[in-house]
Parts: sequence; structure tokens; C-alpha cells
Amino acid sequence: MQTLFRYNWMVREEWYHWCEQVEEDELLYIRTGGVGGILNTLFHIADVEWSCFRVLQGKDDFQESFESYRSLKKVRALDAAFRPEVEEFVHNWNNSMENRVLEDRLPDGGIQTYAWGEVMRHVIAHEIHHIGQLSVWAREIGKKPVSANLIRRGLFTISNR
Amino acid sequence: MQTLFRYNWMVREEWYHWCEQVEEDELLYIRTGGVGGILNTLFHIADVEWSCFRVLQGKDDFQESFESYRSLKKVRALDAAFRPEVEEFVHNWNNSMENRVLEDRLPDGGIQTYAWGEVMRHVIAHEIHHIGQLSVWAREIGKKPVSANLIRRGLFTISNR
Repeated sequence: MQTLFRYNWMVREEWYHWCEQVEEDELLYIRTGGVGGILNTLFHIADVEWSCFRVLQGKDDFQESFESYRSLKKVRALDAAFRPEVEEFVHNWNNSMENRVLEDRLPDGGIQTYAWGEVMRHVIAHEIHHIGQLSVWAREIGKKPVSANLIRRGLFTISNR
Repeated sequence: MQTLFRYNWMVREEWYHWCEQVEEDELLYIRTGGVGGILNTLFHIADVEWSCFRVLQGKDDFQESFESYRSLKKVRALDAAFRPEVEEFVHNWNNSMENRVLEDRLPDGGIQTYAWGEVMRHVIAHEIHHIGQLSVWAREIGKKPVSANLIRRGLFTISNR
């Protein structure tokens, strides 16, 4: 579980570096698919990750829109502000938390339940999916995307390596 | 670990159904990014998943190219042929296998080592990443993509659900 989060944070950081080499107009350009743009996607990834962890902990969610964060600097600052709490939650994750129940009240008054482990994996898959969209848009503007490889990132330590 | 594979297989199956509603020309059309097309991507996902498991088990890899599988029916048949062995491997996965070492001989004669757990997560992330690319191409042809949500798929059973 933790490995996939570390993978996501590493890849996300590389996309921020990638964005530094691209005109801000391109980062803000409205594109087909996903949430409709490169920087908007990175904002959305950080937002959803933090929001899910807040909800699991019964804390207030993040409700601001991308309109207030339309620069690489602002998105990175927001992500950096969220990160310590997110990292702490992931670091403290253990198997006993897998089947804890999150109850979500629906508009019709009903209750939708989720296992915490389900929400955690949703957050992991959510980011990787959106990063896949960035890789297409990168090629559309003629740039090589960040590698999505999980191997060869030093995420596992092998004694004979 | 197993949950994320089950998620991937479920999403992949939904993409195969999605493909049934789309003209084969669109599925074969050469697109920007990734491996360059919708059906080619689904072939690539099934190929890489199976190949990684074969390599972990020290068995022969799959070496055929997409050129021999340029129809939805052929890709699905190939995936279905691979699946039993893949499912068995995932089903039998346990924590003691995480740090087993895969040795890969490099062209220069050196040896690259991977932890089995690293390869497993690579396969998971690889599929989700490529499915993200499909979601952009789906919108480009005016079709709603398959949902990437991991929640609400019944992947976790909660006692009070």
C-alpha cells in the first residue's frame, strides 16, 4: 500500500518538474478528457487525495475550486501544504485499518458505506489514471511524458542490489 | 494487492464491452500518446501482465506483435487464454513472495534485480496508466469512457453493507 503512494508522489513530483519546462498557457489549455487540462489535473489529484484522507478521519473536506490555483506555483504550494498530513496517514497505515467502515450520507438520506482499504486503493488508482491522461496530452504538445514505470525507482531494497 | 488486480480485470472487461459499441476503424486508428491506439493498448496491457508473470516464474515470455491481433475478438481471445495462469498466480500471492528476487540479464552482461513485489505493483500501475490514456481517446471520439472508480465495485465486503 505505502509503496504505491510513494510511487505516486515520486511521479507527481516529476510531473511538476516537467511542467516547469512547459509554457503556462499549455498547462492551462483546455483539453479533451479527464478534468480538461494539465495543471487542473495535478490540482485535482492533490485535492482528491487530501479530501479522501480528511473524510476518513472525519475532518472537514477541501472545497475550493481550481479557479483560485491557476499557476504551477500555487498548485505545488497547495500540494505541499496537504502533504504532511497525507504522508502521516499513509505512514501510520496498517492492516487493522483495512476494514474500518466509512459511512457517507447520500442526498436521499441513505447511507453508503466504504471500507477504508477500498478508499485508500481508490486514491491510488485515481492518481495513476489521471497521470495516464497527462501522458497523452504531453505527446499532443510534442513533449516526452514522465515515465510511468514503477520498477527501477528504488522503491524496494534488495539485499544483493 | 489482489484487490487492485481484480479492479483492473473488472475495468478491462468493461473496456472490452465499450469497444463493442465502437467501430473497429476507431479501435485501430493511430492516436497520439501511449502505444498509439485503443485496441493496441488493450493488447499491450494483457501482453505485459502475462509476460511479467511468465518472467517471474522463469517461463518463456510472449513475443508476438499486435499486427497478428488487430481485432477486438482476437485481443479478447488472447487475454482469455492468458487469464487462468495470471489469476492463479495472483490468487496464490502471499507476503512471503514480496522480496523474492528476479534477476534480469542486461545487454551489457550485467544483472538488474527486482523484488517480486515491485514487479507486481509495476503491472498494476502499468494497466491503470494505460487505461487513463484510453479515457482521453474515448472523449476524442465523443464517447463516455468506462469509469475508473475503484469504490462502489463491490471489491470489499463490509459486514453491515
